[in-house]
Amino acid sequence: MKIAILPGDGIGPEIMNEAVKVLNALGEPFELETAQVGGAGYAAHGHPLPDGTLKLAKEADAVLFGAVGDYQYDKLERALRPEQAILGLRRELGLFANLRPAILYPELAGASTLKPEVVSGLDILIIRELTGDIYFGKPRGVRECPDGPFAGQREGFDTMRYAEGEIRRIAHVAFQAARKRSRRVTSVDKANVLETFQFWRDIVTEVHQEYQDVELEHMYVDNAAMQLVRAPKKFDVIVTGNMFGDILSDAAAMLTGSIGMLPSASLDANNKGLYEPSHGSAPDIAGKGMANPLATILSSAMMLKFTFGRLEQADRIENAVKRVLARGLRTPDIYEAGTIKVGTEEMGNAVVAALQ
Amino acid sequence: MKIAILPGDGIGPEIMNEAVKVLNALGEPFELETAQVGGAGYAAHGHPLPDGTLKLAKEADAVLFGAVGDYQYDKLERALRPEQAILGLRRELGLFANLRPAILYPELAGASTLKPEVVSGLDILIIRELTGDIYFGKPRGVRECPDGPFAGQREGFDTMRYAEGEIRRIAHVAFQAARKRSRRVTSVDKANVLETFQFWRDIVTEVHQEYQDVELEHMYVDNAAMQLVRAPKKFDVIVTGNMFGDILSDAAAMLTGSIGMLPSASLDANNKGLYEPSHGSAPDIAGKGMANPLATILSSAMMLKFTFGRLEQADRIENAVKRVLARGLRTPDIYEAGTIKVGTEEMGNAVVAALQ
Ligand SMILES: CC(C)[C@H](C(=O)O)[C@@H](O)C(=O)O
Ligand SMILES: CC(C)[C@H](C(=O)O)[C@@H](O)C(=O)O
Repeated sequence: MKIAILPGDGIGPEIMNEAVKVLNALGEPFELETAQVGGAGYAAHGHPLPDGTLKLAKEADAVLFGAVGDYQYDKLERALRPEQAILGLRRELGLFANLRPAILYPELAGASTLKPEVVSGLDILIIRELTGDIYFGKPRGVRECPDGPFAGQREGFDTMRYAEGEIRRIAHVAFQAARKRSRRVTSVDKANVLETFQFWRDIVTEVHQEYQDVELEHMYVDNAAMQLVRAPKKFDVIVTGNMFGDILSDAAAMLTGSIGMLPSASLDANNKGLYEPSHGSAPDIAGKGMANPLATILSSAMMLKFTFGRLEQADRIENAVKRVLARGLRTPDIYEAGTIKVGTEEMGNAVVAALQ
Repeated sequence: MKIAILPGDGIGPEIMNEAVKVLNALGEPFELETAQVGGAGYAAHGHPLPDGTLKLAKEADAVLFGAVGDYQYDKLERALRPEQAILGLRRELGLFANLRPAILYPELAGASTLKPEVVSGLDILIIRELTGDIYFGKPRGVRECPDGPFAGQREGFDTMRYAEGEIRRIAHVAFQAARKRSRRVTSVDKANVLETFQFWRDIVTEVHQEYQDVELEHMYVDNAAMQLVRAPKKFDVIVTGNMFGDILSDAAAMLTGSIGMLPSASLDANNKGLYEPSHGSAPDIAGKGMANPLATILSSAMMLKFTFGRLEQADRIENAVKRVLARGLRTPDIYEAGTIKVGTEEMGNAVVAALQ
């Protein structure tokens, strides 16, 4: 059970420390190896995804990822910016299935900007395709506009695309995940405008034939964005493409008001995965010991479940997190009057102590 | 002042009736001519945008549009489906600037799913580019996947693109609109992933040189989706591309909880425009006399302002709407205990009576 530990930038190293403590406390024979990624990778080796880091990530059975990005790297050319690391890892490792739960812990209902009755008990699983779509499609670039009223001017362009097999495999992931939940899948597309997503809709409908016990609904992305605000609890599993998933999964995360709590998994075809918190590197609070380590700790629980099949250990971690919340411990991002404000380390230690 | 009246499908004819009543009550020499569009266009002439309708829309100074779409047309091939009418009108009339205000009327704060303190007084203007981007880019279709792990399979594909001049003109619209408001523009893109939107960011930054009195902020679309949920009142003007604008403007509209109140304008380079409510054709309540006509009535106020420069008449309509709300009149979509439930016609009549 070899795990690549990639702390990254900003609060990444702090929150990763706590997740590593929790892993070490489980008494499993993990082999952990750390490497630089993102801005830290660039600073140490001149590239956000250094060769050594990519090699480690490929060799390992799973990757635990902190967060990347910091102000000082904003001005670099795009190919060297921190976020290229995460795009590179997804592509090189074939991590096509991104699982992002949006769960509202009852204790944290007050943190949401939505009315409690709209979000309390929220439990959505967003499944975002992660290696196709307009993220990697070619050709792309800046060229001379070939025709129309702007012919001869410069234009920026990209290619959106999904092959049949890419849609099939993510649809299977969604239907299978729904079987472990409420058996409802909403496939989000823009079939009324885009050829890519009319094709998406057709293929998802075909794959659904194999899952007649699961309910399938198709929804346009603009409507999905509205329904997430209007009645988010109506959703069970949402499956969508890379671009729409990027937008909707962040909107869904923010509905909870506690994005510092939300883990994510990015899986390949063999359950190898990269696990990371849904939040970013928050450089404004880096080094202050106030970041919330729970999303990273819960990401390690997802790792135990999906990659290593250690369901009891995953449960141990999830239950420990519930216990520290029930005890009232809160990092500043989720603090409310009447609870106990703690720092990153204290929170990590409390989870370790609550592991039992 | 020739106005093309295109009621469309579902609740379209009902809400349009009320808007026409209001226009007729203003005492202006409007010339109104009605034509079929959407499903109604298909039923009457075999096409969602019949030649006669397009001709009328081209000749008129402005188009007042109801809504299109109904269950019975869902199974038609894409080129004949109702929504092609709206795409065709945008393209044929060169309506590149879509202005969608998201305003929360104080009387309706309770209708939002967000906490009152998060949305009360909300007043955002979303400016969506409407004739470029992946909506109309070519090539597009279904082809054989040329390379990569899925080579040889079928794939759906589309082209995202923005030419320099297209970005410039929408940026000007945004900066000029901001000058009449709080002088803050948020340009939403995905410059960290897409060439199209790195180019977009560069050009918007250039155009901003001419508007040093306006503050410009760039924001990634995933973050914008989060900030709309977290702190929507921080936005003043949002400018973005066609696809992101489709998603974000609907999310922003839903923040108000009263999408039945929200008008929109789609303008060409000479202030000719198409005006329509932000909501859809709601076929489930069509013909029941319960649809909210206020978004259509307020769309006609936008028409008076932008196309005809009749600011006082636009104000008369907007004030009349405020008065009927203050009197407590509510269609079912915005009804709350303690207010007076009225139907479509009663609401339209009340606005006419309140015109003064
Ligand atoms: C950093 C960026 C490239 C990335 C994405 O768009 O996928 C991020 O927003 C995410 O969702 O992980
Ligand atoms: C009907 C559809 C083609 C259209 C769009 O995507 O632009 C609609 O959603 C809108 O926003 O007006």
